[in-house]
Amino acid sequence: MTTGVRRRMGVEERRQQLIGVALELFSQRSPDDVSIDEIAAAAGISRPLVYHYFPGKLSLYEAALRRAADELAQLFVEPREGPLGARLLRVMGRFFTFVDEHGPGFSALMRGGPAHGSSRTNAMIDEVRHAAYRQILAHLDVEEPPPARLELVVRSWVSLAESTALLWLEGRRIPRAELELQLVHDFAALAAVSAAYDAEMAGVLVRILAGEPADGPFGELVARLAALAPGAS
Amino acid sequence: MTTGVRRRMGVEERRQQLIGVALELFSQRSPDDVSIDEIAAAAGISRPLVYHYFPGKLSLYEAALRRAADELAQLFVEPREGPLGARLLRVMGRFFTFVDEHGPGFSALMRGGPAHGSSRTNAMIDEVRHAAYRQILAHLDVEEPPPARLELVVRSWVSLAESTALLWLEGRRIPRAELELQLVHDFAALAAVSAAYDAEMAGVLVRILAGEPADGPFGELVARLAALAPGAS
Repeated sequence: MTTGVRRRMGVEERRQQLIGVALELFSQRSPDDVSIDEIAAAAGISRPLVYHYFPGKLSLYEAALRRAADELAQLFVEPREGPLGARLLRVMGRFFTFVDEHGPGFSALMRGGPAHGSSRTNAMIDEVRHAAYRQILAHLDVEEPPPARLELVVRSWVSLAESTALLWLEGRRIPRAELELQLVHDFAALAAVSAAYDAEMAGVLVRILAGEPADGPFGELVARLAALAPGAS
Repeated sequence: MTTGVRRRMGVEERRQQLIGVALELFSQRSPDDVSIDEIAAAAGISRPLVYHYFPGKLSLYEAALRRAADELAQLFVEPREGPLGARLLRVMGRFFTFVDEHGPGFSALMRGGPAHGSSRTNAMIDEVRHAAYRQILAHLDVEEPPPARLELVVRSWVSLAESTALLWLEGRRIPRAELELQLVHDFAALAAVSAAYDAEMAGVLVRILAGEPADGPFGELVARLAALAPGAS
């Protein structure tokens, strides 16, 4: 029995090693372009042995995605202390670090996975989106289910963070720190647009802004927009 | 020869009919849940005859997607006359009519197609996004390639329109007219955030707003936000 347990542990360790190797390769090239042979070589084992631990590339890909998805969802966890703008900025910092480190793997993942992706991989990606959504809702101190317009703002923003990161990866032409701040501002902007036509959303916005310092990301945006306004009118 | 031409015309007409029948069924249920048998029954022909025109469900799905994608891309074409806000509002009206009419087919499409989707279907969806992006750029009177920050704003907005439409389809809890207007405002909001930190984007924003009437969608947003501001500060 003891030996059996030890052998199973060994299997799990080997699986974790292979997942790590796969994620490392996926951070340099799209999963579509990485072969099982390369993964075997990078792990220092034979190709048949890889198949011993994972029956096929899709199962290894799904396991790698599972680990990356868990890590990504975890990035949105942030202590519920201090102004919202500063919290979101820290979340965006961690998010871009993740995107930066995973590169092509992140792109392939968010663009629906490799050509042989499955409904399971799509479901995992949706889980991450939902986890991010629920984390942000928690920071807004809103009970679930939230009003439809607030749900739309938060889920739209999660989707915006995703698409902004994907565009950034294409050529990294804009410094990531700028995009992290911009996304925090985009959150305020989407909330403000919604608040302009809905009293309930206006209440949420007023409550958020009341806790923001003048030198925080939201305060700075309002000051900069005000400075821009005379020229625009 | 004449008979041959006629027969080939007949094939094309039948193919177009089957595509129309498929799109009609996909507007009610996800393509994944629609069988070739149902398509055959709705078209009033036998299942083997469907396979005569399309070798498999994926090829019929791709042909249906091709037609829907062409139609969708076309919706973003709008005369370059009058204020930008009004143009974008007309585009959003047509976009939501399309989304409304295609329902589950649109959702399946944008979520990466059915489980047996292909890299060809993904490429078609990206083509639509790119067509929409180029149309919006043309309305901004900006030469290609645009500055990186403007590209980001426009492509982010196209992605936002997509995600907003998908969320709307889940329960249609917010009137679509409100979302059409909201997306026009979101465009201005995303541009304003970008302009707050970048002189080139500020120039683009000032130019857009200069052409907007006070009672247009952008003018109305600014007035409503100004009315909201005292409460928020």
